[in-house]
Amino acid sequence: MGKMTRAWRNDAVAKVTGRARYTDDLKLHGVLHAVPVYADHARARLRGVDTAEAAARPGVVRVLTARDVPGQVSYGQIQRDYPMFVSDAVRSRGDVVALIVAQTRAEAIAAIPFVRADAEPLPPLTDPEEALREGAPLVHESKGTNVVNHHKVRLGDAGAALSQAHLVVEEEFLTSRVEHAYLEPEAALCVPRPDGVMEVYGSMQHPFSTRRFVAALLGAKLSEVEVRAVPMGGGFGGKDDTAAIVCARTALAASLTGRPVKTTYDREWSMRESYKRHPYSLKYEVGFDAGGLIAGARVRIAADAGAYCSVTPWVTWRSTVQCCGPYAVPAVHADVYGVHTNNVFTGAMRGFGSPQVNFAVEQLMDIAADRLGISPVEIRRRNMVRQGSTTITGQVLGGHTVSLPQVLDAVLAASGFEGKLARCSRGAGDTMYGIGLAMSYRGMSLGAEGTDFNAAIVNVQADGSILLEVAIHENGQGAESAMVLLLAEQLGVDKGRIRYRMASTSSIPDGGTTVASRGTLMGGGAVVDAASKVKAKLARVAAPALGCRPEDVVFEDEFLSDPKGGGRIGFDDAVRELFGAQEHPFAYGSFRAPKVTWDEETGQGDAYFTWVYGAQVAELEVDARTGKVRLLHAWAAHDVGRAINHAALAGQFYGGMAMGIGYGLHEEISSAGGVLAACNFDKYAIPRAKDLPEMTAIIVENADPLSPSGAKGIGEPTNELMAPAIANALARATGRRFNSLPMRVEVGR
Amino acid sequence: MGKMTRAWRNDAVAKVTGRARYTDDLKLHGVLHAVPVYADHARARLRGVDTAEAAARPGVVRVLTARDVPGQVSYGQIQRDYPMFVSDAVRSRGDVVALIVAQTRAEAIAAIPFVRADAEPLPPLTDPEEALREGAPLVHESKGTNVVNHHKVRLGDAGAALSQAHLVVEEEFLTSRVEHAYLEPEAALCVPRPDGVMEVYGSMQHPFSTRRFVAALLGAKLSEVEVRAVPMGGGFGGKDDTAAIVCARTALAASLTGRPVKTTYDREWSMRESYKRHPYSLKYEVGFDAGGLIAGARVRIAADAGAYCSVTPWVTWRSTVQCCGPYAVPAVHADVYGVHTNNVFTGAMRGFGSPQVNFAVEQLMDIAADRLGISPVEIRRRNMVRQGSTTITGQVLGGHTVSLPQVLDAVLAASGFEGKLARCSRGAGDTMYGIGLAMSYRGMSLGAEGTDFNAAIVNVQADGSILLEVAIHENGQGAESAMVLLLAEQLGVDKGRIRYRMASTSSIPDGGTTVASRGTLMGGGAVVDAASKVKAKLARVAAPALGCRPEDVVFEDEFLSDPKGGGRIGFDDAVRELFGAQEHPFAYGSFRAPKVTWDEETGQGDAYFTWVYGAQVAELEVDARTGKVRLLHAWAAHDVGRAINHAALAGQFYGGMAMGIGYGLHEEISSAGGVLAACNFDKYAIPRAKDLPEMTAIIVENADPLSPSGAKGIGEPTNELMAPAIANALARATGRRFNSLPMRVEVGR
Repeated sequence: MGKMTRAWRNDAVAKVTGRARYTDDLKLHGVLHAVPVYADHARARLRGVDTAEAAARPGVVRVLTARDVPGQVSYGQIQRDYPMFVSDAVRSRGDVVALIVAQTRAEAIAAIPFVRADAEPLPPLTDPEEALREGAPLVHESKGTNVVNHHKVRLGDAGAALSQAHLVVEEEFLTSRVEHAYLEPEAALCVPRPDGVMEVYGSMQHPFSTRRFVAALLGAKLSEVEVRAVPMGGGFGGKDDTAAIVCARTALAASLTGRPVKTTYDREWSMRESYKRHPYSLKYEVGFDAGGLIAGARVRIAADAGAYCSVTPWVTWRSTVQCCGPYAVPAVHADVYGVHTNNVFTGAMRGFGSPQVNFAVEQLMDIAADRLGISPVEIRRRNMVRQGSTTITGQVLGGHTVSLPQVLDAVLAASGFEGKLARCSRGAGDTMYGIGLAMSYRGMSLGAEGTDFNAAIVNVQADGSILLEVAIHENGQGAESAMVLLLAEQLGVDKGRIRYRMASTSSIPDGGTTVASRGTLMGGGAVVDAASKVKAKLARVAAPALGCRPEDVVFEDEFLSDPKGGGRIGFDDAVRELFGAQEHPFAYGSFRAPKVTWDEETGQGDAYFTWVYGAQVAELEVDARTGKVRLLHAWAAHDVGRAINHAALAGQFYGGMAMGIGYGLHEEISSAGGVLAACNFDKYAIPRAKDLPEMTAIIVENADPLSPSGAKGIGEPTNELMAPAIANALARATGRRFNSLPMRVEVGR
Repeated sequence: MGKMTRAWRNDAVAKVTGRARYTDDLKLHGVLHAVPVYADHARARLRGVDTAEAAARPGVVRVLTARDVPGQVSYGQIQRDYPMFVSDAVRSRGDVVALIVAQTRAEAIAAIPFVRADAEPLPPLTDPEEALREGAPLVHESKGTNVVNHHKVRLGDAGAALSQAHLVVEEEFLTSRVEHAYLEPEAALCVPRPDGVMEVYGSMQHPFSTRRFVAALLGAKLSEVEVRAVPMGGGFGGKDDTAAIVCARTALAASLTGRPVKTTYDREWSMRESYKRHPYSLKYEVGFDAGGLIAGARVRIAADAGAYCSVTPWVTWRSTVQCCGPYAVPAVHADVYGVHTNNVFTGAMRGFGSPQVNFAVEQLMDIAADRLGISPVEIRRRNMVRQGSTTITGQVLGGHTVSLPQVLDAVLAASGFEGKLARCSRGAGDTMYGIGLAMSYRGMSLGAEGTDFNAAIVNVQADGSILLEVAIHENGQGAESAMVLLLAEQLGVDKGRIRYRMASTSSIPDGGTTVASRGTLMGGGAVVDAASKVKAKLARVAAPALGCRPEDVVFEDEFLSDPKGGGRIGFDDAVRELFGAQEHPFAYGSFRAPKVTWDEETGQGDAYFTWVYGAQVAELEVDARTGKVRLLHAWAAHDVGRAINHAALAGQFYGGMAMGIGYGLHEEISSAGGVLAACNFDKYAIPRAKDLPEMTAIIVENADPLSPSGAKGIGEPTNELMAPAIANALARATGRRFNSLPMRVEVGR
């Protein structure tokens, strides 16, 4: 377990004193305000949009529709199917028909009812299974199918394995549509620069992705759009497409009016338009032999993609790779579909396809254990991956420490799980007690369907102060702080020397988005590379005085020194010497993930270059009369590779677990007829402080040799095990299974 | 002569349409306004500054004085002797005692009379010769002397050479104090960022120098100040110290109020406070042998530094190196002093120590020619440096084309100088005619007393558009355009792909200031280096398909090709391929000037790594009754190394010549009692269009092997020969000599 030696945030003071400026806090002289106008149908044929009356309202400067778009109105990260303004087919109640630009936000809002959309409503398609049926109406006529993607795993003969199995567990699970619930809704401020560049500020998780959306809508080159990072009030994977689209529409308004334009969403617009976590329906048949070893599995998953593709193929790909949990399974037949409906679209959210499969797999393991009469710990020990194990995609786990046994032992020891198992009520008593276990592995970063690169610039100034820029965006989670601490460690200097410079899309290459728990891993790799280049420059000028070879110079405690007991020279002095030689301690560094492979037909390949391992335990009570669940304690043990910023890491544990609790017990947005049942926090129940148990974070460290910093990512793993751990605890408390999310204990039956 | 093939400005449209935004055009929400309060004495003892009454005036937010400075109140580029707020000794009428910060600029101005400075006036020291005398009052008590610097050249035995010479010409010259007369006065806008960084926008020629001044005054680290380039309305060397100081005071106001603060100077403040070109007094004794060859020279120069050091040691160093003009002189004894007085301080201005010595030397050559009875062309041909000649500092001229003979021939041919010589009036007639010649060499860039480095970042985007950032600041002269054209040429692509990104001090290392005609030379060197790195990356992925070695790939006309007739691949395709390989066509490049040497005691060394050569001719008439001078035609031939942007280059010729005409015939600010006689353009006579002759620009190209781009600088040479050419023409017209600037033909004597 790591010691809590480092606990620091570079943005803490600005944020707790209210000095930090989020997008809406940016005040510009002469700014106009834009608001969206929605098509009020989940499915309709749009005959026309009449903006004349709205354009004549007080303060209104312009009303934009698809007609005003000089570039591509439809865009997307994978498929270009998202119309930033709809002009013919309405496919979702999040579809925007117009943008009203006015002198004030109030005037823009007042004009909304005066935009007349002439639409012929059609019956919406809201059930993915329905959408998969032959002859179902098509959400996108041009695609010729409602299937967004179909991923497979074809390993061994799953049919034979199941038919010969000692026990086959067959279960269906449904997961819910949930909201990211970031505190800050979407916001954008776009400034047309005199040099013809559109400058974009906004709340987004990936400035480079935003730049692509803006450039597409404007018909501009990438170099003609500069997206500048702004502090962000939360994202959790939710500030990609929609955030970028809000920026793109705002940029169009700025471009056409020649004025700075701001758009700030309210919660209703945000929840209505932004993508959600995919609801999954999961069907599993898992066969076990008499010794409790998994013999084979058949898996069929349908993910509701909603009206647009977004990153559905990537989300469901991770589900595919991880569909059997962290277990060695010799035969697998898996089919994973993304399916269009007329629901609001779905996309990236913390966990990214893991929470759904974990909810299923970890319950299946408990069900099998019960039926086989072995403990939930024992069945996991028998099946879990270990050093050198082969995954269901044929990847041999190695090159890093396969620490699943270690995190399992750690969480069991801390929680006293095995000792408490016997206390579980199994449906008896007024206050029912249960404890549940779940574990997982998670492929790190983007894996075989993404491109994995990051870049950093280290720029040491003449006075020894240091600027650091990394192509990874701070989402509020502490990415900047981790990078600063890492650089301080690499250069052997105090972190006070280092100032993080928020990148712009024009200052550094695209390092990919802040998703997939990849910030510390990938950004850190680039920082280590840039730092090593700066160190090489400094060592070259210092070595002669130190009396050692440049490659032997040690950077520690503000000094460069000869490790063999020779001299030492202060960091500042070495910097001065380098400047004196007219060399600049400026370096660009990059990190490219090791090669991964994938065969889309067989679902075989080295899907991820390294993996993280985690295990969580939930302990709870259920009031048998009210069904009310009271969480008592939650434990989480995760292998983080190497801890860079202990307090921030613990924060990721607590936040991830809290979000997992919301997923397990509270959150859901139903979508009857394509109309979301909740569009604000009055109806959408994220867990409050009173809903949270005591939480214990157990940081396990096995520095990863494939990560230059030794660190891996932990933003998502902590989030993706709470729901199944609660499910297993609830089952042990009540004697019943809860195969749908969120789990609610019905009483009086 | 170069062809006018390239003529383009990246900022032309924004500037001619009025869309470009200069510092004062930047409008921020909630900005405060600051104005300076001057000490109304050229020399005084300051007992105290009472700001209470001013602070209570309507709208005034704060009145700052030296007491409010958390860092170093005194700073400077060489000596830290410039008090950004004076608190004890007043040394110049440009000294500032307070800064008033108010809600509006008008309110701030209205409060100026209410700042009470309690000062005891002292008699000012305004004559450098006086200041050099034993027992003269000291401008800076702490320095113990009024001598800022004393540069020497000690070559051979000048005394012996002069005593044995066939002819000794002994003359004294005085040059004038002149104003840069940039169109846009000083302006600054400072924004305190929530992350603790002070963001600075301003009209300045060197953002990095400004950063040092701001950091010094605030007591901040360099990384805590980010200076961002803004289009600049002219500089001519004049936007360094004063521009930086205005930014620093504004930053202090922003820091102490926590609000954005803007300072915009009016013309009076600008002319009163900003540094000027040094007035020189020059005493020359030059010996010639009977054949017209220079035998030796004794030179004594005193430069009026005014109250503060600024870059006086560097300005006078250039004068020292070039004090004998572009001629081989076997024996030289030169003493060049910078001297403090209570006049407004002096510093960098286009020419930087050359215009003053050229005014003397080129007249001396004509005087000697007349006395020896040879033509002004012939005396120059006999003495001028050629390939392999040794300069007076012992530098052997080589490694580049010593093209003085070539530029001389070019200007003679174009002007018909030799044919027109006989027409000169020599004092006869009502309308007197004269034609004059002057020539020079100029050491390129900063030379042995500066550090010469530049950096560039080339960042190719996924769509093939390109961002270019160079650590050289656009002063309005077209630096950005030249860099874009050069990069386009290097990459073999259309310039339309490339967008210049104005640098910030946090994005790139300090590339030194835009002075010394070094922008194209030094910036170009860095661009070529960065381009070559990007090309190497692209060539590596393209070579296999092209069937040649990466180092043989040719970049031309938007294609990469095998020069031996193999295949070719589009630039965009190569970029796509590189991105596909997860490599990014991003490169940081730098250029360090070749080593130069200097011995301060003997004035010997390789002062500059390369040199430019120029010759100019002026043709004029003088009305014998009114003394009015009418310029007829001016010709300038300069070796530019290699022409990058022909139209901008021609602009440098015309602008430089016009400014030289102002220096020769119109401009001067006298300073009786330390009070400047002119503080606005009503009294300060820059040449108007009607004062300018027909001008002919002759671009001579000899690509310089020591410059990676082949280009040299031409910003200053065109400016520094007009006054002596006019002086020689005036002498041939009137039969009289004009040893003082500006030259005025007195009549009726």
